Amino acid sequence: MLLRSACRIPKLGRFGLTPNRSISLSTQAVIPTATRYPHIIRDASFKEIEEKDIAFFRNAIKSPAGVITSEAPDELEPFNQDWMRRFKGRCSAVLRPTNSAEVSAVLKYCNENRIAVVPQGGNTGLVGGSVPVHDEIVLSLQNMNKIREFDPISGVLTCDAGCVLEVLDNHLEKQGFIMPLDLGAKGSCQIGGNVATNAGGLRLLRYGSLHGTVLSMEVVLADGRIVELGKPLRKDNTGFDLKQLFIGSEGTLGIITSVSILAPRRPKAVNVAMLGVSSFEGVQELFKYAKSELNEILSAYEFFDRTCLKLVKHHIPGIREPFETDVPFYVLIETSGSNKDHDDEKLSAFLDHVMTEGLVEDGALAQDTTQVAGMWNIRETITESLAKEGGNYKYDLSVPVPKLYSVVEEMQERLASVGLFAKDGSASGRVKHVVGFGHMGDGNLHLNLTSTGWSKDIEKAIEPFLYEVVQRHGGSISAEHGLGLMKAPYLRYSKSDDFIDLMKSMKMVFDPKGIMNPYKYFPS
Amino acid sequence: MLLRSACRIPKLGRFGLTPNRSISLSTQAVIPTATRYPHIIRDASFKEIEEKDIAFFRNAIKSPAGVITSEAPDELEPFNQDWMRRFKGRCSAVLRPTNSAEVSAVLKYCNENRIAVVPQGGNTGLVGGSVPVHDEIVLSLQNMNKIREFDPISGVLTCDAGCVLEVLDNHLEKQGFIMPLDLGAKGSCQIGGNVATNAGGLRLLRYGSLHGTVLSMEVVLADGRIVELGKPLRKDNTGFDLKQLFIGSEGTLGIITSVSILAPRRPKAVNVAMLGVSSFEGVQELFKYAKSELNEILSAYEFFDRTCLKLVKHHIPGIREPFETDVPFYVLIETSGSNKDHDDEKLSAFLDHVMTEGLVEDGALAQDTTQVAGMWNIRETITESLAKEGGNYKYDLSVPVPKLYSVVEEMQERLASVGLFAKDGSASGRVKHVVGFGHMGDGNLHLNLTSTGWSKDIEKAIEPFLYEVVQRHGGSISAEHGLGLMKAPYLRYSKSDDFIDLMKSMKMVFDPKGIMNPYKYFPS
Ligand SMILES: Cc1cc2nc3c(=O)[nH]c(=O)nc-3n(C[C@H](O)[C@H](O)[C@H](O)COP(=O)(O)OP(=O)(O)OC[C@H]3O[C@@H](n4cnc5c(N)ncnc54)[C@H](O)[C@@H]3O)c2cc1C
Ligand SMILES: Cc1cc2nc3c(=O)[nH]c(=O)nc-3n(C[C@H](O)[C@H](O)[C@H](O)COP(=O)(O)OP(=O)(O)OC[C@H]3O[C@@H](n4cnc5c(N)ncnc54)[C@H](O)[C@@H]3O)c2cc1C
Repeated sequence: MLLRSACRIPKLGRFGLTPNRSISLSTQAVIPTATRYPHIIRDASFKEIEEKDIAFFRNAIKSPAGVITSEAPDELEPFNQDWMRRFKGRCSAVLRPTNSAEVSAVLKYCNENRIAVVPQGGNTGLVGGSVPVHDEIVLSLQNMNKIREFDPISGVLTCDAGCVLEVLDNHLEKQGFIMPLDLGAKGSCQIGGNVATNAGGLRLLRYGSLHGTVLSMEVVLADGRIVELGKPLRKDNTGFDLKQLFIGSEGTLGIITSVSILAPRRPKAVNVAMLGVSSFEGVQELFKYAKSELNEILSAYEFFDRTCLKLVKHHIPGIREPFETDVPFYVLIETSGSNKDHDDEKLSAFLDHVMTEGLVEDGALAQDTTQVAGMWNIRETITESLAKEGGNYKYDLSVPVPKLYSVVEEMQERLASVGLFAKDGSASGRVKHVVGFGHMGDGNLHLNLTSTGWSKDIEKAIEPFLYEVVQRHGGSISAEHGLGLMKAPYLRYSKSDDFIDLMKSMKMVFDPKGIMNPYKYFPS
Repeated sequence: MLLRSACRIPKLGRFGLTPNRSISLSTQAVIPTATRYPHIIRDASFKEIEEKDIAFFRNAIKSPAGVITSEAPDELEPFNQDWMRRFKGRCSAVLRPTNSAEVSAVLKYCNENRIAVVPQGGNTGLVGGSVPVHDEIVLSLQNMNKIREFDPISGVLTCDAGCVLEVLDNHLEKQGFIMPLDLGAKGSCQIGGNVATNAGGLRLLRYGSLHGTVLSMEVVLADGRIVELGKPLRKDNTGFDLKQLFIGSEGTLGIITSVSILAPRRPKAVNVAMLGVSSFEGVQELFKYAKSELNEILSAYEFFDRTCLKLVKHHIPGIREPFETDVPFYVLIETSGSNKDHDDEKLSAFLDHVMTEGLVEDGALAQDTTQVAGMWNIRETITESLAKEGGNYKYDLSVPVPKLYSVVEEMQERLASVGLFAKDGSASGRVKHVVGFGHMGDGNLHLNLTSTGWSKDIEKAIEPFLYEVVQRHGGSISAEHGLGLMKAPYLRYSKSDDFIDLMKSMKMVFDPKGIMNPYKYFPS
C-alpha cells in the first residue's frame, strides 16, 4: 500500500511501427477473404483490369514506381493483406499517385469504366477496410506525403493525406506543437487514414475527436471532381459541414487528399503514473476523482486487465511488473500541462488521496522520460503481444462506463458455456485468453480473444452474441476502428433502418456508381 | 505602465436576455422583409394556410397554447420579427409542440400539403434565419424544454432542443459541470438553436466547437420520420456521422428535437484580466504568448476596439473605463482551471512578463467574482450598445488572425471614400461607427456598423465589397452566425459551385419538397 516513486521498467523506446514493417504476427498463411467468406460474392458489374487499363494508369501517374502490377507479386502482397492477417484480397494493380490531379484522373477513369477502388493509407486498419475483398485496385496515398503549411499563430497544419502521423507529430514538436491524436500505429498510419476512420486513440480524452480538430480537407470524388471541403479556419459557418461526412467514411465516399488540422501547443510537462485497482468499480471511482482533481491536465486514462500485463511481460523483451501487489486492473494516468511544478503538485495531491483512501492497491509514478516511455510501452504493446499469441479476434466497442468490463465477463461466460474457454486462467481451451483494455476515459473497450488460429465456430460463438450484449447495454459495436468488412453486417445493432437508408442516400450522392471500397461499411 | 490590481468596474450582473424579452433596440417600425427585399418572391407552390389546416394543428398539438394564430396578432408579432429588427415575416400560425411525436405529426402534414415551415428556437439568430420571409408557419421549440438525463461519470447531458442555454448551464453548475458553450444571448437562445446555427461563442477557444461536443441528437425529418442520429456515447464509429450535417443546418434539413452533449467539469477557479494594447500587431503577439504560457487554462481571448468601449460606456449604466491609459485595443483574457493558486501564479507570471516587456500599455486584473462579471459585462454588452445606436449592420467574419483588423480599416476607408463615414471619429457621416470586436482567439471578427436607420445605399456600399475583402484574405463570410437570409446570396464568396451542388443534393435527401426554412441558406 505504498506509492512507489520509481517504476521498475527498463529503458525501452515507445512502440511505433515503421512504415510497411508488418510485425510477424503468425506464420500461418492468410486465408483469402473470398475463401473465408464465400458469401461475399464479387460484383460482376465491376470491370476486370486489362492491359489497356494498366497502360492508362501508367500514363496518368508520372512517378516511376507509381503503378505496381502482378508482374511484381511480392510487391503487391503487402497491399492485399491486412495488419491482423485476417483479410486478404487479390488486386493486380496498386496505384501510388503523387498529387490530387493524378488521383482525379485515375478516379475519373475508374468511374467511367466501373473499376472498383480501395483507398489505402498505412494499412493499419483493424476491420478489414483497407484491403481489397476481390480484385479491386488499391489506390495508396503513400507517395502523397508533403507537409504543405504550418501556422504557429493559429496552430493550423495543412498536409497531404499520405503523411505518416508520427512524422507530423515530430514536425510539430520542433515548433512547440503536438498532433491532437496519437495511437500505437503512429509510425505507419497516415493522417488521411486517421481521418477516414475517425481514429480516436490516446489523446482524445484531452483534445477531443477529429470532428472537432479537422478544419478542412481536399477530397477527390468518385467522378474525379476535386472539391475543397471548407477552409483552414477555426470557424466557418457557411453551409453544411460536408467534410464531417468524410471523417469516418472509410474510403466509401471518395479519396481524402489533404487535411487541415488544429494542433494544440505541446505541453511542457508530462507525468505518468500506473495504478493497481482491486475492482472495476474502483477503476470507475478513480476515474471520477481523476477528472475532478486533474481536470484540465488529465490527458489519458487507460486501463487493462491482469491478463494483458501477463501477455506483455511474456512477449515483449524486458518488460516487468510495474509493482508487486497482485491486482486485477491497471490504470495508466497521464497528465500534460504547461508548468511542471503545478502538475507535480496536483498529481501528488491526487495520488496521496487515492492511496490514503484505499482507492488503489499500489502504484508507481514515472520519474523521468524513460520511465514515462516505459509505462506507455506496457499499454501500447498489448496489441502486439496479443498478436504474438496466434489468431486474434479484436473487438473495439463503446460501452457506458459502468457496464464496460461486464462485457468482457459476459463473453468469458459465454465461451466457457460452449466449451471453448477455461475460466480458471489455465488457457487450456481453444480460446486461450479473453481480455479487456482500452481508453476507459472515453468508454472505449478493446475486447480481444486469442486462439491458435481463426476458426468459423469460434467466430460464430462470438458474433453476433457480443453485439447483442453491447446493444443491450446501450453501447456501440464500433467505438473507433470503424466498420470495414468485419462489422458491416452487424451495423443494425447500432443504427436504425432509417439511419441506414440515409447512409445509402449519402453514398448515392458522392459515389453513385458504387466504385469506392465496395462490399464494406453497408450491411447487405 | 502599471498593472492595476483592482478593476474599477461597478457591480453588475452578467448580461443575459430573459426568454422573449427583446431589448428595445429602436423605435423605428420594422420593414417587412418582402417589402425590403422585393426580389425574394413567394414560392407560389407553397400552400396558404386555411382554417382546416389550423384545425389539424390544433388537433395534433395537445397543449392549450400550442397553436397561436392571427386571432392573436400581438402574440404572433414576436415570432415574426428577428432580434436585429431587420427582418419581418407575416406568418399566421405559430405551432408549439411539446414532444417529438407532435413535431412528427405536424411535419408529415406540412410535407404532404406543401406548407412551408420555419423552425424557431430563442429567435436570437443574427442572420434572419429564424423568422418567416413570407407566410411560412413557425414551429417554435419553446414548449420542448425538458432536461432528460445527466450522467456525472461521463458528463453527458441529454435534453429537449428547446431548453434555454442558461437554464442548462445552471442545472450543470449544481453538479460541478459546465456547458461547453456560452454566449451573450444565453438567457434566450436554445440548445437546439445553438446546434442548428453551430454557435461558437465565448468558450470555443477552450472546449472546442459543437462538432466535437455534440454526441447525438434526435431529429424529425421533413416527412415526419423521427430519427436518432447517433447515441450519447463519446465514441461511435458506425457509419456516416449524419448528426454533423444538422450542426449548422439552420433549420433547412429538419427539426432537432433533442441533443446529447458532452459537458466538461466546471473549473474551480476563474480569473479575468483586461489589457490595453497599442496596436493590432501587439494584440497578436499577446495572443501567441498567452497561448504558450497559459495554454490549458486559457479559456477566452476576446478583443474590442476603443469605439466599442466608448459606446458601452455611453449606453450601459454604470460602466466606466477599466483603466485610464488611452489605447486603441482592449483584450479580455480569462483563465479557468482546477487550482486557484496555480492559476494565479501562471497568470501573474504572464502579466508580469507582458507588462515588463511593454507588450501591453495598461491592464487590470479582476479581484473577485463581481469584478470578473463586470469585465465580462463590458465585452458582452457591446452588441446591446451598438443596437441602441439605431440601425445596425452586423457582420460576423472569419479572417486569418494577421489580417483580422485590417478588414475593419478597409471597410472604414471604403465608406469614407463614398462619403458615408467620417474617419475623424466625429460620427458625423450617415454611417456613424465602424467597429471591430470578437473572439480573436478563433480568428473571429464581429464587424459592426451603426447608422440612423437601414438604407439600401449603405447596404450596397458594404455588400458585396466586404465579402470580396474577406475572400481575398482567405477568410469566411460567416464565422459563427450562419447564412440565414442575409448571407445566402453571398455563399459563393466562401464556397465553390461543386460544394454548393453537393449542399443541394443533401437538401434533396432530407427535404425533397423543400418545405424546411425556404428562401434561405442557398444562393439563388
Ligand atoms: C498497433 C495498432 C494500434 C492501433 N491503435 C488505435 C487506436 O488507439 N485508435 C484507433 O482509432 N485506431 C487504432 N488502430 C487502428 C488504425 O491504426 C487506425 O484505424 C488508423 O486510423 C488507420 O490509418 P491508416 O492510414 O493505416 O488507414 P488504412 O488502414 O490504410 O485504411 C483504413 C480505412 O480508411 C480508408 N482510407 C485510408 N486512407 C484514405 C484516404 N486518404 N482517403 C479515403 N479513405 C482512406 C481505407 O479505405 C480504409 O477503409 C490501431 C492499429 C494498430 C495496428
Ligand atoms: C446578444 C447576442 C449575442 C450573441 N452572441 C453570439 C456568439 O457569441 N456566438 C454565436 O455563435 N452566436 C451569437 N449570437 C447569435 C445567436 O444567439 C445564436 O445563433 C444562437 O445559437 C441562436 O439560437 P436560438 O435558439 O435563438 O435560434 P433561433 O434564432 O431561433 O434560430 C436560428 C436558426 O436555427 C434554426 N433553428 C432553431 N432551432 C432549431 C431546431 N430545434 N431545429 C432546427 N432548426 C432550428 C432556425 O430556423 C434558424 O435558422 C448572439 C446573439 C445575440 C442576440
